[in-house]
Amino acid sequence: MIGSGQRILLVGDERKYFLKAGNGTFSTDKGIIGLDGIVGAEPGDVIRSHNGSEFTILLPKAPDFFEYAKRSGAPMLPRDIGLVIACTGMNRNDSVLDAGTGTGIAAIYFGGIAQNVTTCEVRPDFARIAEANIRDAGLATNVEVLASDVLEIHGSYDIVHFDMTLNPDHIRHAHSVLKPGGYLACYTPFIEYLFMVMDEAEPLFSELKSVECIEREMSRTKRGTRPSTRVGHTGYLTIARK
Amino acid sequence: MIGSGQRILLVGDERKYFLKAGNGTFSTDKGIIGLDGIVGAEPGDVIRSHNGSEFTILLPKAPDFFEYAKRSGAPMLPRDIGLVIACTGMNRNDSVLDAGTGTGIAAIYFGGIAQNVTTCEVRPDFARIAEANIRDAGLATNVEVLASDVLEIHGSYDIVHFDMTLNPDHIRHAHSVLKPGGYLACYTPFIEYLFMVMDEAEPLFSELKSVECIEREMSRTKRGTRPSTRVGHTGYLTIARK
Amino acid sequence: MIGSGQRILLVGDERKYFLKAGNGTFSTDKGIIGLDGIVGAEPGDVIRSHNGSEFTILLPKAPDFFEYAKRSGAPMLPRDIGLVIACTGMNRNDSVLDAGTGTGIAAIYFGGIAQNVTTCEVRPDFARIAEANIRDAGLATNVEVLASDVLEIHGSYDIVHFDMTLNPDHIRHAHSVLKPGGYLACYTPFIEYLFMVMDEAEPLFSELKSVECIEREMSRTKRGTRPSTRVGHTGYLTIARK
Amino acid sequence: MIGSGQRILLVGDERKYFLKAGNGTFSTDKGIIGLDGIVGAEPGDVIRSHNGSEFTILLPKAPDFFEYAKRSGAPMLPRDIGLVIACTGMNRNDSVLDAGTGTGIAAIYFGGIAQNVTTCEVRPDFARIAEANIRDAGLATNVEVLASDVLEIHGSYDIVHFDMTLNPDHIRHAHSVLKPGGYLACYTPFIEYLFMVMDEAEPLFSELKSVECIEREMSRTKRGTRPSTRVGHTGYLTIARK
Repeated sequence: MIGSGQRILLVGDERKYFLKAGNGTFSTDKGIIGLDGIVGAEPGDVIRSHNGSEFTILLPKAPDFFEYAKRSGAPMLPRDIGLVIACTGMNRNDSVLDAGTGTGIAAIYFGGIAQNVTTCEVRPDFARIAEANIRDAGLATNVEVLASDVLEIHGSYDIVHFDMTLNPDHIRHAHSVLKPGGYLACYTPFIEYLFMVMDEAEPLFSELKSVECIEREMSRTKRGTRPSTRVGHTGYLTIARK
Repeated sequence: MIGSGQRILLVGDERKYFLKAGNGTFSTDKGIIGLDGIVGAEPGDVIRSHNGSEFTILLPKAPDFFEYAKRSGAPMLPRDIGLVIACTGMNRNDSVLDAGTGTGIAAIYFGGIAQNVTTCEVRPDFARIAEANIRDAGLATNVEVLASDVLEIHGSYDIVHFDMTLNPDHIRHAHSVLKPGGYLACYTPFIEYLFMVMDEAEPLFSELKSVECIEREMSRTKRGTRPSTRVGHTGYLTIARK
Repeated sequence: MIGSGQRILLVGDERKYFLKAGNGTFSTDKGIIGLDGIVGAEPGDVIRSHNGSEFTILLPKAPDFFEYAKRSGAPMLPRDIGLVIACTGMNRNDSVLDAGTGTGIAAIYFGGIAQNVTTCEVRPDFARIAEANIRDAGLATNVEVLASDVLEIHGSYDIVHFDMTLNPDHIRHAHSVLKPGGYLACYTPFIEYLFMVMDEAEPLFSELKSVECIEREMSRTKRGTRPSTRVGHTGYLTIARK
Repeated sequence: MIGSGQRILLVGDERKYFLKAGNGTFSTDKGIIGLDGIVGAEPGDVIRSHNGSEFTILLPKAPDFFEYAKRSGAPMLPRDIGLVIACTGMNRNDSVLDAGTGTGIAAIYFGGIAQNVTTCEVRPDFARIAEANIRDAGLATNVEVLASDVLEIHGSYDIVHFDMTLNPDHIRHAHSVLKPGGYLACYTPFIEYLFMVMDEAEPLFSELKSVECIEREMSRTKRGTRPSTRVGHTGYLTIARK
């Protein structure tokens, strides 16, 4: 049952809205919606605007937060986050250390899977944005946002994930807080940082692997089918196992 | 605490072994290991072979099952499974329908994340192999392997995943068993099947997207750094949201 | 020695200009240039604007025509033209049949290499633009532009190149006009046409090969080095040898 | 008319042979061929083996030398050579300086196009192999193989092409021997050399561009159509214009 203040996705015929249930109204091109009418509904229920247009109420999932959440910068793409999850085998028993949080998208993905996530963001303003996004995702109970330097975080983790400017200290620190068999995943957009990560991780870790993930979208129209004329490079991912 | 018959990963200096705790011994190039000595140990504990070589006892994670589990064919690659997880935002609240199971690797990944997974494999011999792998992964409680045609499975799912030869009936069936906002993910190695999936899904679903995931491994040696001279195509992934 | 009306490239400190030697003046942000002063010069000579800025006079090469020539549509990219040249081994002894001409860029590339090029463009307005570009490239003597359907062209060619909407007749016609050992090169942006070309060419030709050429530009800045975030798909190239 | 000792390609139903016209016989699985019967023939003529099987006589083109010529190492791939030709607009008026020759495949491609090619190979044994290949390609008149260090070669060139281990001296030397508007093309398999070339060329040249060329072959069988599961990285190409 959806509570007041809860983040929901309202899906009309052609458009989607990322809203909060509760007080007030929201105007769409298909009429006005009373947000209090969403409180108490179940996901999948249909609500009508003042002129009778139907909207389905959904709970947003991680891809919706990537699409609609307030950003503090360019978040890591879902495909790269998926590669982290795949290469580390992240599951419900895992304890995850994540830095830098940024918008919090990776933390939202990880928080929906892992037992608990500690995510570090040195910029307090970014940490606040991420914290709000994570709370909206219903993950406040198992995802902790810390406005601090990850080098100051100690403990014992199954997975450490870095999406930030890295130096050799970070690689050594990750090794020190990982459990045996645990995974380090470093996301680096630039080749120079990829080299540093590979060189630092090589003597410390086993099963070192660096990959680039290229995603090509296929376009299918009446004229014909072809790969998209754009293919984004995002970055390199290095996976190292302790 | 590791029980008798439980699947473990034994990690020596240079090699890893995918074994079961319990009776008997196992010979490595660093000496003989008594498998009964693993029973009662904790993950991370160290065990010694008869000549004193040390091995760390770990619980295998999903990537280890991809690497070591008994196969009934070529399983979907972790990078493609990761893309399914990323594009569907799979999390601990999800109910997942998966077909065809094959070796069970995707089901093991999904089972470590989702609330429950029903996975269908028409070949009974393949279903038995997958069931053993899933049991070894400790997922017997929330992953059910059915040796049946997925078209005969009804219910209500958050995510439907297909890695099998598809026809239009499968796309329509997936739509009928998905909850509002739920995702269909179809993995198709060949372009002809990609076209069929795109054409069938287009009028039924929203947020249709077809992508190819290309992973390039970076090789770094004393001679220099370069992308691997091999880059595998595996297949196309179509994601459709109800 | 550069003649009146000849196409030249004028290269200043920061900008390039694609001009014709002859009457009149041309204004740049570094002063006014008398175009008659270019007549009689040699490529590599330096000319000064009215305020003393220096410009080097060059003869444009094929990449300059791709960059600066008047277009009738999106021309084939140099990288794809290069792949045609590479896969066919185009050289000074070859007789080439090309269709559709479009802007004439491929014909300019081929004309600078082959003994003679016949290029067909069904749209008379496009053919006129291409003819002007080819004349500007100094290739009027060995490149003939025909405003006609390539199916009406007979003769005996070492290489046939198609960059146009194709049907099975085109593949059979190419086979009929090729010398033994000659090459057909078909450029097809869409997968459906790629399939048609592969299917028609397979029983007629030997050494059939279809490829996609992906070019990634590397970006190197103070922040670091990375592949460009854009990678264009242009099309598929099928090479078939008679 | 084919002369004695001339390199030819003999094409049977299923196989091709890279032979020399002249004395002796050659045994195929379709019978024995008298090589003296090829002398005096024209390209395209058909010759019969002792048991009546037909073979077409062709003059080999550059791709055939890539396929069949004696190698001294892994030659640059045709697709990369094509990219050099495309990015430099190489044509019949060009004077080309090439180093290191290796097997001579790039020199054979360039020699079929440019007015003259000087190609440098420091290893005398490699230079001899390349010289024989170039003579077989009928390019002895406009391609000169020098068993020397390219830094010792002076003159004035339209295009300089390097496929060898490079240092900053090579980039500066290339600049000194290029005509205004001329192009330097450097092929570097490893990222570290790519960086060096980009850094050295940037202050000296204009229009600097570094690309990676990825070629994907499409496989079409009865099971379906898909990109090849192999895609080779070969190297990075940097093009700089004086």
